[in-house]
Amino acid sequence: MADEFVLRRRVQFAETDLAGVLHFANYFRFMEEAEHAFWRAIGEGVISEHGGCRISWPRVSTRCEYFAPVHFEDELDLVLRVVDVGDRSVTYEIEFRREGRRVASGQIKAVCCSMSDGAFGTVPMPKPLREKLEASVAAHGGALKR
Amino acid sequence: MADEFVLRRRVQFAETDLAGVLHFANYFRFMEEAEHAFWRAIGEGVISEHGGCRISWPRVSTRCEYFAPVHFEDELDLVLRVVDVGDRSVTYEIEFRREGRRVASGQIKAVCCSMSDGAFGTVPMPKPLREKLEASVAAHGGALKR
Amino acid sequence: MADEFVLRRRVQFAETDLAGVLHFANYFRFMEEAEHAFWRAIGEGVISEHGGCRISWPRVSTRCEYFAPVHFEDELDLVLRVVDVGDRSVTYEIEFRREGRRVASGQIKAVCCSMSDGAFGTVPMPKPLREKLEASVAAHGGALKR
Amino acid sequence: MADEFVLRRRVQFAETDLAGVLHFANYFRFMEEAEHAFWRAIGEGVISEHGGCRISWPRVSTRCEYFAPVHFEDELDLVLRVVDVGDRSVTYEIEFRREGRRVASGQIKAVCCSMSDGAFGTVPMPKPLREKLEASVAAHGGALKR
Repeated sequence: MADEFVLRRRVQFAETDLAGVLHFANYFRFMEEAEHAFWRAIGEGVISEHGGCRISWPRVSTRCEYFAPVHFEDELDLVLRVVDVGDRSVTYEIEFRREGRRVASGQIKAVCCSMSDGAFGTVPMPKPLREKLEASVAAHGGALKR
Repeated sequence: MADEFVLRRRVQFAETDLAGVLHFANYFRFMEEAEHAFWRAIGEGVISEHGGCRISWPRVSTRCEYFAPVHFEDELDLVLRVVDVGDRSVTYEIEFRREGRRVASGQIKAVCCSMSDGAFGTVPMPKPLREKLEASVAAHGGALKR
Repeated sequence: MADEFVLRRRVQFAETDLAGVLHFANYFRFMEEAEHAFWRAIGEGVISEHGGCRISWPRVSTRCEYFAPVHFEDELDLVLRVVDVGDRSVTYEIEFRREGRRVASGQIKAVCCSMSDGAFGTVPMPKPLREKLEASVAAHGGALKR
Repeated sequence: MADEFVLRRRVQFAETDLAGVLHFANYFRFMEEAEHAFWRAIGEGVISEHGGCRISWPRVSTRCEYFAPVHFEDELDLVLRVVDVGDRSVTYEIEFRREGRRVASGQIKAVCCSMSDGAFGTVPMPKPLREKLEASVAAHGGALKR
């Protein structure tokens, strides 16, 4: 796995608001799209079956900083890095770049859960998933928290 | 102004996702709805005209922590407090409560800008707006940063 | 049940687009919110359990006509009428009014389904639901299709 | 221009709902994304400047029929055809296909407007835009309404 994963994503009309820019809440949807594309890129799905459990990744914290407005039809590069892998959690940083220049930067921390009908219980991360996430961290020299 | 502003808001079907819960990005829309209801409650609009400028409040940073899943048709109390007022910025904290219990908590920092066609330039906050925001901070004993 | 059901709904910032108006796709979310509020008003839920089945109402067709632009913070009255009840389907018409004047009008046709994990099978409408929907139609003199 | 324009689009997590499927209102966003990609493909933008006017295309009517549920990560082909060009309007049909099979079908009728601050006035379609739209209709043998 390369040291970062990049998804190119164009800003759509419905994602803008009356101020003429990408609405600030939609940055979180963009981050999630990068995350899910990353899961596909490592041969997994963000929703998966392991040991009879349906694994999903509810969020425990998210944040975003905004450096410059983004407009309709702008093409953004969403640059995702796995910055931390714990026993039951993973943290991503996603940088938003337009023509190589950073316009926003965000973070998602998610926990590994067994999901059933809108209820969640945290579980230790299945080994195959953990290994792939750790490999991704190692690739870009991130500090690995055990 | 009371020490906090509360907006009751029901979770809608389209705001849930396949995990059966309120999608994490939609919490930011809820926060913004509380913010705009707060502006109306103090007799102003989040978009306003002052000194020939069209004032709006783009975000510079946002964050949210999630403590418990939230479901379709849950009624949430969004409890907004103004926690900081600067020369050109304001910071809100919004707590999400369901039946009195905190289920999430977030923050929005916005800057005062003159808006024109999707471009923004920061400007000192118009005095009438600043006074109302400060009064709101003072009401709940928040530290006022000049 | 009165001959029509009305939900008042304010247009939120995130629902506008760069043209400065309520984005056309969001009218369908508004219609659905009126539908679900209607279900609550008749003492039911749009998702319900009947005879061991989880009943839901996927859409088979929807449409909307737009007569005038709608803006941020406009308060709309969503006026819902049940216009047809079949063995396995229901059709709603929703009129959008601003200060008494019609600004849009839409329709949703939904089918009664037993839902399981993203798969659906149509089922005859449970009698208690059918009776309540028919009563609503009868109330406003709609033609009842059997 | 080929007789139809195709945009491939993957269903994202935030676009699903608790029933586990693509939320019905989001089909209209998909249709619009196909429309805007079509405008780019013919070398124009859906927002453009002509004769000192800012041209945009508010919708007068939209509709969708749903034939089969669509799920997270499904890849859809959105097949757009221009089916009618009037003096001031254009009508698109968009078919949703998954692995070659039709799962939904929709229509958007939009009018050519001069846009200013959330207000719109219909105007005759600028000739360069009309010629490109007509060429697209002609290409697939659609009947051209003058």
